[in-house]
Amino acid sequence: MEDLVRCFLGGDRRALARAISAVENDHPHKRQLLQRLYRHTGRSYVVGVTGSPGAGKSMLIGALTRHLRREGFTVGIVAVDPTSPFSGGAILGDRVRMQDIARDAGVFMRSLATRGSLGGLTRNTRDILDVLDGFGLDVILVETVGVGQSEVDVSSLAHSTVVVLTPGAGDGLQAMKSGIMEVGDVFALNKADLAGADAARLEIEGALRIVHDGPGGWRPPLVKTAAVTGEGVAALWEALVRHRDFLVSTGKLAGLRKERLRRDIATLAGEHVRGLVMEKLAAGGGLEGELVRVADRELDPYTLAEEVLTDVAREVLVQNG
Amino acid sequence: MEDLVRCFLGGDRRALARAISAVENDHPHKRQLLQRLYRHTGRSYVVGVTGSPGAGKSMLIGALTRHLRREGFTVGIVAVDPTSPFSGGAILGDRVRMQDIARDAGVFMRSLATRGSLGGLTRNTRDILDVLDGFGLDVILVETVGVGQSEVDVSSLAHSTVVVLTPGAGDGLQAMKSGIMEVGDVFALNKADLAGADAARLEIEGALRIVHDGPGGWRPPLVKTAAVTGEGVAALWEALVRHRDFLVSTGKLAGLRKERLRRDIATLAGEHVRGLVMEKLAAGGGLEGELVRVADRELDPYTLAEEVLTDVAREVLVQNG
Repeated sequence: MEDLVRCFLGGDRRALARAISAVENDHPHKRQLLQRLYRHTGRSYVVGVTGSPGAGKSMLIGALTRHLRREGFTVGIVAVDPTSPFSGGAILGDRVRMQDIARDAGVFMRSLATRGSLGGLTRNTRDILDVLDGFGLDVILVETVGVGQSEVDVSSLAHSTVVVLTPGAGDGLQAMKSGIMEVGDVFALNKADLAGADAARLEIEGALRIVHDGPGGWRPPLVKTAAVTGEGVAALWEALVRHRDFLVSTGKLAGLRKERLRRDIATLAGEHVRGLVMEKLAAGGGLEGELVRVADRELDPYTLAEEVLTDVAREVLVQNG
Repeated sequence: MEDLVRCFLGGDRRALARAISAVENDHPHKRQLLQRLYRHTGRSYVVGVTGSPGAGKSMLIGALTRHLRREGFTVGIVAVDPTSPFSGGAILGDRVRMQDIARDAGVFMRSLATRGSLGGLTRNTRDILDVLDGFGLDVILVETVGVGQSEVDVSSLAHSTVVVLTPGAGDGLQAMKSGIMEVGDVFALNKADLAGADAARLEIEGALRIVHDGPGGWRPPLVKTAAVTGEGVAALWEALVRHRDFLVSTGKLAGLRKERLRRDIATLAGEHVRGLVMEKLAAGGGLEGELVRVADRELDPYTLAEEVLTDVAREVLVQNG
């Protein structure tokens, strides 16, 4: 553990990989590790990248990474998408096109398993971002599929969120209906060389005007990109930097950080208690009889939850003094 | 409140609607209400219905509801899908075709808002199912879109889960990859009159054999349905009843119920503590200084979470004696 932390803080990529695995697999020392790394965090700029399957998120992330490397930044890529080439799940051609990135010592890639289905961040994603942050990467790009709530989830973890759209059939309207317009800070109209790009642009800009109409707020820009040629990628990065500057200058970043800390700390405490209650209720924990009474509707779950919580509170006090 | 409970237990549909709204909107008396209704629950058979958008879930639920009504059962329909005709979100033709159900006093329909995006059950879905159960409905059908984790979520709430597939391009393989095969207890091949239905059936049955190969376990049947004509709907219901009987006779239902109770009770306690910690950390709660120290990386969130939890534990003990 001490070894791991030393190598990690020394910039050893294998130590980084091991630290992430420790978090992902709920290693017994996970919490201790995160505690040790915490004071090295807070420097990375975390960008969420979301959009429908096939929108070209991975290729765009590849192009953005190359641009960032040329600008001298180190980059972390976290793919929460089993079909991403970063997860090894894509067609061979895409993987080959990513090889320069895979070999670059200034880029660290990692794909995270999801609970058996598309989309959805893993419970540990936030902790893993902290690990990458503590390692000292300048920019962390998080790729999620824009289905279900994953785009909402990623926007709660990232400083800025890019929504990737394509000129396809009514993508703009579709996005508006599904609530994705509220989530994006910057929109990329990818594959902008395809037919229908101008119509799509008008449609999306119209939708953006409806959703973001407050004064003094951030108006998400729409950037035309072509990930394959790298066109528009510099403009995309500029738009992101403007958003980050907006967050800093308006004090929103500090507010956001404090709000997230509150949520994180409350979640930590809640999850801890949840685990303690589960232990108490496990088979052989002495509460089988109470559980049967609830199953038989003689007792309600709210009352039992209160009883068990009282026991747990007593234990917490004994443990923490 | 007393009025509401009396009318509710008397079978007043408006009281049922109001009770659901109270749960959905986190009414201050929500918990008291759920506590009162709890001993009337445990009688409904809850069936989750999931599948891709366009698979025909709503029409199939409509057809299944008509069948159940003819068999003399009362039915609750909960749609967690903004595009469902039960949510008023569908094309007019579908809504017109559902009017007989909407007018039937033995059917109660409700659509639940999701957090701004497709899929994803709301936090309150489980409580709402308890309300419908307490009202005395025989069968509750829960419709969710099969994207993200919603199909996994619904299978944790339902006794049996129906996955609706269509003979479209590689739907079987798609389903297998996304983990939906593990979730279904019964599979409906809907629109079975379309071309390619036989090929799709073979493909899906092959996938099912791979996923469910244990001895003594449940082997999910595949039922061909045509929601528009009602074909196969009786067979679908028979398959569901067989699954329910399997759960009962193997003791799995009782085990499942106890496991869910454990999880529910632990979640209740965890969420309660989470809320208490959030209150303590709110602006003006006296912990601003500590939060700033965490934001400045002088203190780590784990240590602060522990400190706040100790305070909260003390409060819980004072309150609960």
